[in-house]
Amino acid sequence: MRFNTVLIVGGGLIGSSIARAAREAKQCRTIYIADTSEAVCKTITRLDIADGVADGPADHFAAQADLIILCTPSGRLAATAMALMPSMKAGAVLTDVGSVKGHFVDAMRDQVRDDIHLIPGHPIAGTENSGPESGFATLFTDRWCVLTPPEGANETAIKDLTAFWEALGSDVAVMDPSRHDIVMATTSHLPHLIAYTLVGTAIDMETVTRKEVVKFSAGGFRDFTRIAASDPVMWRDVFLTNKTATLEVVDRFIEDLTALKRAIRWDDGDRLLDSFAKTRDIRRRILDSDPD
Amino acid sequence: MRFNTVLIVGGGLIGSSIARAAREAKQCRTIYIADTSEAVCKTITRLDIADGVADGPADHFAAQADLIILCTPSGRLAATAMALMPSMKAGAVLTDVGSVKGHFVDAMRDQVRDDIHLIPGHPIAGTENSGPESGFATLFTDRWCVLTPPEGANETAIKDLTAFWEALGSDVAVMDPSRHDIVMATTSHLPHLIAYTLVGTAIDMETVTRKEVVKFSAGGFRDFTRIAASDPVMWRDVFLTNKTATLEVVDRFIEDLTALKRAIRWDDGDRLLDSFAKTRDIRRRILDSDPD
Repeated sequence: MRFNTVLIVGGGLIGSSIARAAREAKQCRTIYIADTSEAVCKTITRLDIADGVADGPADHFAAQADLIILCTPSGRLAATAMALMPSMKAGAVLTDVGSVKGHFVDAMRDQVRDDIHLIPGHPIAGTENSGPESGFATLFTDRWCVLTPPEGANETAIKDLTAFWEALGSDVAVMDPSRHDIVMATTSHLPHLIAYTLVGTAIDMETVTRKEVVKFSAGGFRDFTRIAASDPVMWRDVFLTNKTATLEVVDRFIEDLTALKRAIRWDDGDRLLDSFAKTRDIRRRILDSDPD
Repeated sequence: MRFNTVLIVGGGLIGSSIARAAREAKQCRTIYIADTSEAVCKTITRLDIADGVADGPADHFAAQADLIILCTPSGRLAATAMALMPSMKAGAVLTDVGSVKGHFVDAMRDQVRDDIHLIPGHPIAGTENSGPESGFATLFTDRWCVLTPPEGANETAIKDLTAFWEALGSDVAVMDPSRHDIVMATTSHLPHLIAYTLVGTAIDMETVTRKEVVKFSAGGFRDFTRIAASDPVMWRDVFLTNKTATLEVVDRFIEDLTALKRAIRWDDGDRLLDSFAKTRDIRRRILDSDPD
């Protein structure tokens, strides 16, 4: 057993799923969960997915933990890490599950104790539901988990954390934090911003009632609402902490959409057809590569 | 039996699904399918989903049909209807399945023989797959089918066509063509244009490889690729024939996206949070109303 005791900070969808999955995969003896919300802690106690729960300072848990996993919104990651740092056990591995890596890595630079191994991470998994009751043990099965260890990071720590995620069912990829953020801006952050915008635009259209939007949502709209139901606080933090990469890809998207809009206005059917035909291949490649 | 003989013109996903569903629901004695593609006709013959197939002029079928359903791309609907009009049987009902209604209704104005009942229609159902092999009998189950009968249309014809779609499992709604097109611009046409654009933008980003896009698509991108795999010819025609409503809603979308982009640039987290929080409710209402 690589990690005897695990502390999960933030008991929402991701944190509670890790607790369930780690227990099921017998990856540790003791699992603690800390969350600033009293209500969340009560739910976790009722669900019985942890060996100890704290709704206040979690220093007593941090002092025992061989692995600390931060599952708070991105905007609070660094502050949470710094608050627990003095209590942490020498040799502990400190990781997170934030969707943006550069911001967290930068904030932690030169702030990590020499005897703590910081290996930031990002499991690419989730649902549109939030809170501890939404979690489930198979959330990470056949999903990628990206680790972004800093240069010179302890090899054993990387290996142990990799084995932990693999035991939870994930495939692990190691990437540079800034590369991670650029790729995710395209494959995850832009899609979420677009979905939020589209659903908002539809709600605000004076020409269409909300009842009509709901009634006729099967024509394409419905698929967007799932993504647009994702946790608002988490996504606010994602966009603010991955600002540069997000703005770049949003600009590109608006440029491309404006070109298609112009093609519609000028009846340029060939241009539309060219654009629409080239996107099918990606779908096929995704279906071929995906176990779903 | 309201319609003894049915002619389906266009044997793709929708046309072939109607043939399957109508036969299974015993809605007619004879089903003919006409398609300009020889390959499609061969497939339909092999699948044995029609009592007769024509890859050339279908006048002999039109002369016998009590119900003619046009399932060609929107851009060819009016020309197809006009070509068959002289052969049609007196009293026949003529309908279509086009995603845009105003354009077809306008093109047919004063062109329909007095003894033919034109009742345009739009089943809000489909998948990202095309062609006769992609069709299936339950495609229309629990889906809306919108009918847009012109003023003064024959009540029996409306009632018969409504009963036909209901027998195929659909709920039928009657709407004004221009209202239909405005609602669909928001709930269907904009989502498709956005999905095509997003997938195109991702493919074209120099900073991200296609391999990375495929590998990390589970972060949100994947959901868009399904819609962006829809039939390119059909969607080209949808945008060109529903131009005004589409351009209006695209403009609104770009405006809203630009406002969110600005909020990201200026760290206006409250504005982002407000926008993201209001979209969850629509998801809940759709899930409550949908049998899926």
